[in-house]
Amino acid sequence: MGERTTDNGPVPAGPTAGTAVLLQLVRDGRPRTRAELAAESGLARSTVAERIDTLLTSGLLRHTDKGPSTGGRPPSLFAFNPAARVVLAADVGATHVKAALTDLSGQVLVEQNRAMDIAAGPDAVLGELCALGDTLLGEIGRTQRDLLGIGIGLPGPVEHASGRPTNPPIMPGWDGFDVPGHVQERLGGAATLVDNDVNIMALGEHRTHWPEWPHMIFVKVATGIGSGLICGGRLHRGSQGVAGDMGHVQLPHGAEVPCRCGNVGCLEAVASGAALAARLTGLGSPAGGSADVVGLARSGSVTALKLVRQAGRDIGEVLATAVSFFNPSVIVIGGALSQAGEHLIAGVREVVYQRSLPLATQNLRIVQSRAGERAGIYGAALMVVEHALAPAQLDALLADG
Amino acid sequence: MGERTTDNGPVPAGPTAGTAVLLQLVRDGRPRTRAELAAESGLARSTVAERIDTLLTSGLLRHTDKGPSTGGRPPSLFAFNPAARVVLAADVGATHVKAALTDLSGQVLVEQNRAMDIAAGPDAVLGELCALGDTLLGEIGRTQRDLLGIGIGLPGPVEHASGRPTNPPIMPGWDGFDVPGHVQERLGGAATLVDNDVNIMALGEHRTHWPEWPHMIFVKVATGIGSGLICGGRLHRGSQGVAGDMGHVQLPHGAEVPCRCGNVGCLEAVASGAALAARLTGLGSPAGGSADVVGLARSGSVTALKLVRQAGRDIGEVLATAVSFFNPSVIVIGGALSQAGEHLIAGVREVVYQRSLPLATQNLRIVQSRAGERAGIYGAALMVVEHALAPAQLDALLADG
Repeated sequence: MGERTTDNGPVPAGPTAGTAVLLQLVRDGRPRTRAELAAESGLARSTVAERIDTLLTSGLLRHTDKGPSTGGRPPSLFAFNPAARVVLAADVGATHVKAALTDLSGQVLVEQNRAMDIAAGPDAVLGELCALGDTLLGEIGRTQRDLLGIGIGLPGPVEHASGRPTNPPIMPGWDGFDVPGHVQERLGGAATLVDNDVNIMALGEHRTHWPEWPHMIFVKVATGIGSGLICGGRLHRGSQGVAGDMGHVQLPHGAEVPCRCGNVGCLEAVASGAALAARLTGLGSPAGGSADVVGLARSGSVTALKLVRQAGRDIGEVLATAVSFFNPSVIVIGGALSQAGEHLIAGVREVVYQRSLPLATQNLRIVQSRAGERAGIYGAALMVVEHALAPAQLDALLADG
Repeated sequence: MGERTTDNGPVPAGPTAGTAVLLQLVRDGRPRTRAELAAESGLARSTVAERIDTLLTSGLLRHTDKGPSTGGRPPSLFAFNPAARVVLAADVGATHVKAALTDLSGQVLVEQNRAMDIAAGPDAVLGELCALGDTLLGEIGRTQRDLLGIGIGLPGPVEHASGRPTNPPIMPGWDGFDVPGHVQERLGGAATLVDNDVNIMALGEHRTHWPEWPHMIFVKVATGIGSGLICGGRLHRGSQGVAGDMGHVQLPHGAEVPCRCGNVGCLEAVASGAALAARLTGLGSPAGGSADVVGLARSGSVTALKLVRQAGRDIGEVLATAVSFFNPSVIVIGGALSQAGEHLIAGVREVVYQRSLPLATQNLRIVQSRAGERAGIYGAALMVVEHALAPAQLDALLADG
């Protein structure tokens, strides 16, 4: 709130802004000459030369092979150096901690999963996470000093600015807990950013597979149902950080089904992996969760396929309204239940294309997640990288390097 | 699409960025010294001095009274000069053209309304609009050369980038018409921006009354029903420019009512001013449109009040889903029917607070439009100002001045 904005977003200024612009340019991986950097950034050549020196010193930029000569000595080429630092990215679920170290392009260097009950509380879960971080650093011969930062996704609402969970329904003991403070203290003070798990999945999916598509809805269909919104290329967290909550939108025809939130007829109570597993069990095909539903569907169970397709239609009903309001370029369906094959997506498409305005669906794509199980890790890592390389934080990083 | 974005938005660079930053600072109206401008912008004092000269020459900045002395000579104060140029802002409805000249702060200098049927086609309507623009310029002793630009709101979907209407349902002859080209040719080549009327109302309402509230849904309830979204302080137009279309979301209980779009049970077919007028007429209280419904409600007709309240509830049903997805800070209800008093808003509140997640409604405000009938004019004007003063366009403006 109170952030100064224009139609083109906040306008940063000062020397750091120029440095940030150069970094933004080279983050695409293509090496460039001084002249190219000047031309593409709009900065004066003398300024570019000065900023390049700063960035070389920090290690964020490196020399690469010489460019093609235009007669005289071939010009120097400069490229982003994703190996300058590492990021600890963690995707914490209801029953697991997944952690990875990535480079500054989000490439996974090493990763590990541990079974862990979120209900064990923040001390136990974050202790495990930090120990895992140290183990991973050791495995690739780096130290806490090499950490650019730490990104964490949690399975509940998080106040992103403070990194504290707010009234998370399945996380006893976590409400208001200072996650960044706790983690930073154990991992050498590295800047720690925390967000809801679906938000980081949305960011990861967007950055790795849909960077040119400005408006995205990412839907996670697993034990529960949630979504993350990308708006003009930026993660839209909303006023209380709870944007994307679609699991508790009421379906018109589901009024009889009670939901764990206390209401009846919520989308999640009807179309989630947990709801489908319960239904299948009741119909004589025992299923413990999303994975079993996916297994039954893949093995050709007609009952499972029918239920998955109807879940797609139910999700489509709620998405149709979101499509009319938000007019996204792409809807991505991820989460464990999306592994059930095309039946879920087909159900979503069927209803969205039928119910939304033709103009809003004209170029709309509805697809399965491409980042898959790593969406959260990519998102947690890139959230940290984008934050650290933005003008507001870059000064600190350069002074530190 | 393809715009380079980070979590903090596009990063502009070069000398213009610094100039744009200074302009952004002073646009709040408060005069500042050179030292304050340097401190607040993060720019070097030598750079600030240079940019101030450029801005004084362009007329966008002006000297004001001296500041308080700190011992020696009192320092010079610089302030934004909203009188440097004027903007022609037009709000074109189904049956009227409303046009105003504003200064660069969006203040209305002079305005006029003309009855005009949008179905008369673009030549006739835009001809009238341009003639009106010349008349207004003459009235305040300015010329086409003084125009910073022209902002136009139209009652249908518009591709904002090209300024062309796309399949507008109530605008025969307008589909794909080059509105900016047509207007620019008649008004001295002034840059012309076109958008949907509800979008400019949303922008105008936000900028004049809710600038510190980053996420807003503005709902226009009149003959039809539409909305405009402000996301992170920026107007969210969506992928095809049709974001905010809520009029044709289907209500669960309205399935019997046919809509002009060809579907049944659309919100607009049930809860718009036109729908209520038809219902009242059928019940023996003849009403020709929103204004008559408002008149009946204000005169205390219990039937009208009941219908208005139920319309609020119906709108609330659709908004509840939008609240769950978008998690806005404020919902503003505008348009002719919002003049019916608190009954419409009360109906909206009743359902949204009941149906949305507690966390999403915790700090949510649902209020009547404060910009009222001028929301569109403010929005059209400020759309032009923000565009012209942004780094990408500012060079042209300064060269021109």
